[in-house]
Amino acid sequence: MRCLKMTVAYRGTHYCGWQIQNGQNSIQQELESAFRTVTGETVRMTASGRTDSGVHALGQVVSTAIRSEMECHQLLRALNGNTPFDISVLKVEEAVPRFHAIRDATKKSYRYRIQSGPVSDPIDQDFLWYVPFSLDVAAMQSGCEYLVGEHDFVCFQASGGATKSTIRTVFQCQIREAVSSPFRKLELDIEGSGFLYNMVRIIAGSLVEIGKGKRQPDWIAEIIQSKDRTKAGPTAPPQGLFLMNVDY
Amino acid sequence: MRCLKMTVAYRGTHYCGWQIQNGQNSIQQELESAFRTVTGETVRMTASGRTDSGVHALGQVVSTAIRSEMECHQLLRALNGNTPFDISVLKVEEAVPRFHAIRDATKKSYRYRIQSGPVSDPIDQDFLWYVPFSLDVAAMQSGCEYLVGEHDFVCFQASGGATKSTIRTVFQCQIREAVSSPFRKLELDIEGSGFLYNMVRIIAGSLVEIGKGKRQPDWIAEIIQSKDRTKAGPTAPPQGLFLMNVDY
Repeated sequence: MRCLKMTVAYRGTHYCGWQIQNGQNSIQQELESAFRTVTGETVRMTASGRTDSGVHALGQVVSTAIRSEMECHQLLRALNGNTPFDISVLKVEEAVPRFHAIRDATKKSYRYRIQSGPVSDPIDQDFLWYVPFSLDVAAMQSGCEYLVGEHDFVCFQASGGATKSTIRTVFQCQIREAVSSPFRKLELDIEGSGFLYNMVRIIAGSLVEIGKGKRQPDWIAEIIQSKDRTKAGPTAPPQGLFLMNVDY
Repeated sequence: MRCLKMTVAYRGTHYCGWQIQNGQNSIQQELESAFRTVTGETVRMTASGRTDSGVHALGQVVSTAIRSEMECHQLLRALNGNTPFDISVLKVEEAVPRFHAIRDATKKSYRYRIQSGPVSDPIDQDFLWYVPFSLDVAAMQSGCEYLVGEHDFVCFQASGGATKSTIRTVFQCQIREAVSSPFRKLELDIEGSGFLYNMVRIIAGSLVEIGKGKRQPDWIAEIIQSKDRTKAGPTAPPQGLFLMNVDY
């Protein structure tokens, strides 16, 4: 058996998410089915993390063990010839034996996109969260700083998460205004050792409470200390979230 | 009667274009219907130019004559409460009497977005033309320079255009690489006194022939001199085109 590492981009709008679910379209199913078409082989693929319905990826990493001897560059081309228009395979590489996209990940980066202001951008609706208020970005950035470091992030975990430890390290967390006239767009970039279920979306939802002036930046520290999900802000909607990159 | 100038943004993906057509969804119909809901008044709206199905606008300008005395800022809010998510009214302003969005326009700006390279961006498919080749941007930029100035652009007009004169002035035309890792995106920005039917899309299609190396940059001069549509390149697809701005 060979181990493969694939880097995949997709638009999550029309899928139930990464993972195969009965009777729904999933990214996993489309990729496994493309692989079967190309090689005749039925394989099981593992992604670095399940993305939910509506969540996008620019650098999802997928591992799989295969028997086919087709070369990586041929697989890349053939897979892209057999995936729908909203899923692209960016890279196919040989991986070390037993390479595992979840277990071996050392760093993940997400972006969460927000638009604020009185009128929503009609073009970008599938790719951001529209908040019809003016947001204080400096206050949100102050809030971000409380997230950096090693913490028990159980307060930012939605029910349905199934990890043993809820301790994670956030390496970087920044929010800034993206240049995008005539609309005001914010990009929250967060890098960490790993993320709990819905963690980035609950963080985005909490930072928006700060941006609206409903809470002070140090509220983030309070939430972390509380270890209580009910203390955090609402879960931001999925379509603003992009899995950007996974390091190994 | 009052004259209004409205600035409108929309995603063209799910519409037959600006203009009302039997049995199809149009931007015009949605806006006129929102206006009727808000004021009870049936009005006819005129856009600076008809955009085709799939073409987007960030700064379309619409003129209309109304009886309603509702204030502009109230109209703005009420219209946005009654348009679909993919149409937004950005501004509502009082205009001079008999203001006409087509006749009074002095400058229009369009952007055409292209992605080139071996793998297509699955996220941005509704908003660009994917060209599966590497493109020579410097050669394309040289081609752009032949377009600047006053010319008879009949060679870049699709059948169906109904203007008397085909002479227009292109003030600026530039193509450059947009920062958009991991994909390579090009933005063609063109500003002119006005544009013939499909002119920007035929120009984009011709510049891509140059980018592929099939033609030299001075081919643009030849096309213009020929005054013959059959000499130009193919019409680029609609989804890469954005009406950015109209000046009066």
